[in-house]
Amino acid sequence: MAKKEIGSDVFLPMPVVLVGADVGSKPNFMAAGWVTRVNIEPPMVAVALTAGRYTVKGIEEHGTFSLCLPSKDLVEKADYCGLVSGKEVDKSAVFEVQYGKLETAPMAVECSVCMECRVVQVVTLGSDAIYVGEIVAAYADEDVLVQDALDVQRMGLFFLTMPDNKYRLMGEEFAEAFSIGKNVGERD
Amino acid sequence: MAKKEIGSDVFLPMPVVLVGADVGSKPNFMAAGWVTRVNIEPPMVAVALTAGRYTVKGIEEHGTFSLCLPSKDLVEKADYCGLVSGKEVDKSAVFEVQYGKLETAPMAVECSVCMECRVVQVVTLGSDAIYVGEIVAAYADEDVLVQDALDVQRMGLFFLTMPDNKYRLMGEEFAEAFSIGKNVGERD
Repeated sequence: MAKKEIGSDVFLPMPVVLVGADVGSKPNFMAAGWVTRVNIEPPMVAVALTAGRYTVKGIEEHGTFSLCLPSKDLVEKADYCGLVSGKEVDKSAVFEVQYGKLETAPMAVECSVCMECRVVQVVTLGSDAIYVGEIVAAYADEDVLVQDALDVQRMGLFFLTMPDNKYRLMGEEFAEAFSIGKNVGERD
Repeated sequence: MAKKEIGSDVFLPMPVVLVGADVGSKPNFMAAGWVTRVNIEPPMVAVALTAGRYTVKGIEEHGTFSLCLPSKDLVEKADYCGLVSGKEVDKSAVFEVQYGKLETAPMAVECSVCMECRVVQVVTLGSDAIYVGEIVAAYADEDVLVQDALDVQRMGLFFLTMPDNKYRLMGEEFAEAFSIGKNVGERD
């Protein structure tokens, strides 16, 4: 099939996360989806945020942030945190807040998994910057752990897709990674 | 519920993509999942790759790469491209290859959506580097387009999850983004 050229503003499906930061002395949370793990050792994450965001102010102030992973049951609160800015609305009471080792990376207790991150690099691009954070510590609710490992199915993660602006569930497993492709080379 | 501290090597669900690069004059594709959109304008992507990968050699040689989005029907080939290195196996014939404007960013024709990217920044971390690429052009098969916009459901994207090493389907939509959270502030 012949391909058609489309606009370059293409989106990948985005795992919805909450980025937490203290702005001044108050916790603030924003929803984000431009996020990925980076670096195997030490473990890091990268999150792209638009310049001028209230949360960015807090990250730059303290050099720390949290990433918390909301389950689908928290979709309303997560969406709210993406709709309103901490500049206009105090979001410090949307979640129960807990601090860990970094002391300035507020974590949303209702999320089953949270990470505390220390900023190790800021990469300024055009309209956004990438904040690369080393995961200093991570925490999980007992009910998403099986033998101390995270159970993906129990986490109830969800995605934002664009341009349709939908939240979508994590779907079913259908193949084993690092396995199902083993015989491709021999067959082709 | 009290949270338990877990290891810091936490994974987010990863949209599976193929990263294409010419190494010398031959196209090579690797599977990757540490990838996200970054920067609104101009549109960019960021992909984290481990140092020494064969594909990295090609990206550094030409300053270009492609991102192609395989559907679930291509899971075997995508997995294969993550299992074997171009150092040992010639992967140039796994997909039908097409070039676009950049001329050195090979695209896998079987994937319904492909992007050509020009490297604008390389961010060296510990074991990996983040390659930030501006999306110079994007192409899609007609059958994933509805009124010239990408239809997420038709793309059949899938995710890699860890630590369970499963490929999972994109699940159903269950809420409207930038909408479902509108009344949270008033209610709380």
